[in-house]
Amino acid sequence: MQIYVAIKLNENQKAYLKSHVIRARLIFKDEIEKEHRCDVFLQSDICFGNVRPDWLEMTDRLQWIQLQSVGFGEYQKVKGRVPFIMTHLKNFFAVPVAETALAGILTLYRGIYIMEEDRKSKNWRGVSLRPHLHLLHKKDVLILGGGAIGQHFKKLLAAFDCDTTVYGRRATNSDIQADHELDEAIGKCDILVSILPGTKETIGIINRDRLESLKSSALFVNVGRGSAVDEPVLIELLKNKKIAGAVLDVTYEEPLPVDHPLWDCPNTLITQHTAGGYDDEILDIVKVFLGNLERFQSGESLEHEVDLKRGY
Amino acid sequence: MQIYVAIKLNENQKAYLKSHVIRARLIFKDEIEKEHRCDVFLQSDICFGNVRPDWLEMTDRLQWIQLQSVGFGEYQKVKGRVPFIMTHLKNFFAVPVAETALAGILTLYRGIYIMEEDRKSKNWRGVSLRPHLHLLHKKDVLILGGGAIGQHFKKLLAAFDCDTTVYGRRATNSDIQADHELDEAIGKCDILVSILPGTKETIGIINRDRLESLKSSALFVNVGRGSAVDEPVLIELLKNKKIAGAVLDVTYEEPLPVDHPLWDCPNTLITQHTAGGYDDEILDIVKVFLGNLERFQSGESLEHEVDLKRGY
Repeated sequence: MQIYVAIKLNENQKAYLKSHVIRARLIFKDEIEKEHRCDVFLQSDICFGNVRPDWLEMTDRLQWIQLQSVGFGEYQKVKGRVPFIMTHLKNFFAVPVAETALAGILTLYRGIYIMEEDRKSKNWRGVSLRPHLHLLHKKDVLILGGGAIGQHFKKLLAAFDCDTTVYGRRATNSDIQADHELDEAIGKCDILVSILPGTKETIGIINRDRLESLKSSALFVNVGRGSAVDEPVLIELLKNKKIAGAVLDVTYEEPLPVDHPLWDCPNTLITQHTAGGYDDEILDIVKVFLGNLERFQSGESLEHEVDLKRGY
Repeated sequence: MQIYVAIKLNENQKAYLKSHVIRARLIFKDEIEKEHRCDVFLQSDICFGNVRPDWLEMTDRLQWIQLQSVGFGEYQKVKGRVPFIMTHLKNFFAVPVAETALAGILTLYRGIYIMEEDRKSKNWRGVSLRPHLHLLHKKDVLILGGGAIGQHFKKLLAAFDCDTTVYGRRATNSDIQADHELDEAIGKCDILVSILPGTKETIGIINRDRLESLKSSALFVNVGRGSAVDEPVLIELLKNKKIAGAVLDVTYEEPLPVDHPLWDCPNTLITQHTAGGYDDEILDIVKVFLGNLERFQSGESLEHEVDLKRGY
């Protein structure tokens, strides 16, 4: 059995993987010549890490691919029969993403980003800053997306005695599901947080009307996908201070070009699609793969299989 | 009955106070000439807000002073008999201070302060930042100070599944009380948070030995009083990256002078003694005073009386 390892690993992570894999041959992408990679992939039974979507149309040997991401939108266009299993990192990023969302909100509310500017100029403003700070305590937070990130974020917010409302498709893990309920909740929230994936249903869901109905004191946070929001309208509202600020991990274009207006919007933190990251991220992804590999080798069903046709 | 209002209020706050005070005359400090202020104070029965300590030695009329602070160290040197009651803002700042402490920690762990620099230069580093980020999740946090701030902070940390240890004098609200327990806990914590007041017992308690025993990955947070830590040693450790960073709301000198080395320490956030601040801070302090005034006028005992001799 041959495993093609497409995820980029450092020497320690490779050593960890090697020491835990039995009855299979590991081939690391960065240890073979670029022009041979596709051939090696096509001879492999298992793939660990994301590869080009068109490779998946060519394979007739692959039995299972473990993605190194939650999102798999680029694979939805794979044509033809899909004889292999695809698993993704569902739930994996709940803790880091929720922590970055909270870090951004607290940075804005507690004025940390202003004080970081003061630090550069060695300017102590002290007591005059105090009336410009805000508390997260007891704020009304609307979370779009009922998945693992939303649930973990809700747990963090409970410690701040926040009033949270979760909008999602399924009643089991959301408080509201209907469009008119969403409209109403957006108009009264203090913080709107989008954790929506990039699917047909979510594109542009946070449209002009919804953005314009936000309170002028409201914050907008996006740690889902940039496509969920009408970005030009968001920029217009931020520039004109019609809303109080934003924390954006995701945008239409990534990386954000140097001349993009979002860099200059007031009270806007750009977290560069790092919300899922942390020191042990890659090693923990290796551990997820190893857990599934053990299941695969003993004929059990794998964790977090995706349905390419449904999109989740 | 005359009330001398030493706390600085804006017109709305004054109007709120006036509309809620009955059977008493309010005199606002900023509405009388500087040279008459002391005389007016000496003719007052009640004082709302902090005044010069030597005025308290002169008064024989004052029955009660409501401080606008938790700290009252400057009044401990008041000589002679103290015939009046002094109340302070015990517990008042628990929520904002705990939120600023957490905001600072998450700013460092989630790299927000780095990304704010990137934003100035419009530099998207994205995925290469991810291994440099950390999680608060499950970290070991040592909190010095068992008061209201420490208890609220502990509640917030519980949502992050942190392992918290509270050091304090009284066993009722702390996990450890002995010196050797403190030494041991400092050596193994990920985050050391001081919320200690400025008393004889706390000066220099975080000494060289204790600072040097911190892990190199540890963060130091001070939202208590600057005097608790050996500041020159802290600066040395930060500059030499012997510890990973600091969040300092308080310092030996405040405001921090322009040429102070703390401004330039790496991974060090200076929050300028604003941790207790928030938009409704002053109005909420007025409400605390009004609650105590009602008790005073109906002969009940007041909330949060201080013991000037014991220091808390």
